[in-house]
Amino acid sequence: MSAHFQRELGKLKDKLLHLCAVVEDNLNRAVRALQTRDVALASDVVAGDVAVDQMEVDVEEDCLKILALHQPVATDLRFIVTAMKINNDLERVGDLAVNIAERAIALGTDYPRDLPIDFEAMADVTKRMVKQSLDALINMDADLACTVCSMDDEVDECNRRMFQVFDSALSKRPGLASELLHLLSVSRHLERIADHATNIAEDVIYMVNGKIARHPSATGRPCPRQQ
Amino acid sequence: MSAHFQRELGKLKDKLLHLCAVVEDNLNRAVRALQTRDVALASDVVAGDVAVDQMEVDVEEDCLKILALHQPVATDLRFIVTAMKINNDLERVGDLAVNIAERAIALGTDYPRDLPIDFEAMADVTKRMVKQSLDALINMDADLACTVCSMDDEVDECNRRMFQVFDSALSKRPGLASELLHLLSVSRHLERIADHATNIAEDVIYMVNGKIARHPSATGRPCPRQQ
Repeated sequence: MSAHFQRELGKLKDKLLHLCAVVEDNLNRAVRALQTRDVALASDVVAGDVAVDQMEVDVEEDCLKILALHQPVATDLRFIVTAMKINNDLERVGDLAVNIAERAIALGTDYPRDLPIDFEAMADVTKRMVKQSLDALINMDADLACTVCSMDDEVDECNRRMFQVFDSALSKRPGLASELLHLLSVSRHLERIADHATNIAEDVIYMVNGKIARHPSATGRPCPRQQ
Repeated sequence: MSAHFQRELGKLKDKLLHLCAVVEDNLNRAVRALQTRDVALASDVVAGDVAVDQMEVDVEEDCLKILALHQPVATDLRFIVTAMKINNDLERVGDLAVNIAERAIALGTDYPRDLPIDFEAMADVTKRMVKQSLDALINMDADLACTVCSMDDEVDECNRRMFQVFDSALSKRPGLASELLHLLSVSRHLERIADHATNIAEDVIYMVNGKIARHPSATGRPCPRQQ
């Protein structure tokens, strides 16, 4: 591996980690804005998305340049392809953080405080999944990535329970349909973020083990932890 | 370009087009199952997803093999990278078709026929977007791809209007909250499918023009049609 190629790979890794950090921060702030009814903070998250988009484009262009100029093989090729996919997932997590912030803005500060909706647990698991999928990426830790994959069921279950809570709340308080629909959207956004964290974790497993971990029923290649 | 490489590229293109056709068919059947209350058809769509997952894994493995063995550059490299991304989007469209089918199953055959919900227009635009994004891919037609990108706003607008219709329907008929929530989910699934069709179209533009078309505000590279 040439020194030039090694430098390019190092720069790419740094950019990806910086994007991770920005997206994680945006997600944390979006959830906090919703929980504390902080519309100004939510607007900040929305405004910050242009920077995330720009970072995604930069990372992708770097990946393409490296593929074209250095024609990497084996582990290096796998790293570049995985980086492109993770880059894509991170940008989508950024979009979903914006979607949550937009719901916080739509809800404003005055909606009732006694709604039977508590995102605390669901948001906590989701944020942990994003954090740990990125830790797994940084440390090339397939075991941690498998833990993230197994947490996805927990978030799906939260989302299903949330659906029942909404169903019952909507029947009882139809006058709050609009507020409840906004909150239901947040639940879905969190579930989709967990899906992206799972994608990242599966890509890390692929990067470390060289095995495609998704669709175990199609590939017959379950996550080692789930075997 | 070696004859062997050319053959591999041809096989990859065929596989991608086959995946397109299967996903498009699954989406059509899922929407029809919902519209005609055909639970058996919806179950067929759900069962058919394993095949889509398998095809996605096959296409990705083929792309990786081609990158590793032939180390393509320029247009060929761009094609392989785009194929991997489109492959990913198609698999997600397949998942969303399954999600629509699952809602058709949950709704069953007996829910009221007088709900003020009409997916006809939204489903039509979305299906047209998927169809045309794939036509754009087959014919390397950047103009058609731009048309697809511009249709995304139409679907977003349908989804926004749908949200208002649901809000009002939920306030008036709280006893039908569960049915209405299932239908609201379908509206969201259609909107996400339109997003994936837009991703595919943007990737086609990139493949044809070598320019990243997404995030015009970040890249300053709007779709030629929108300039």
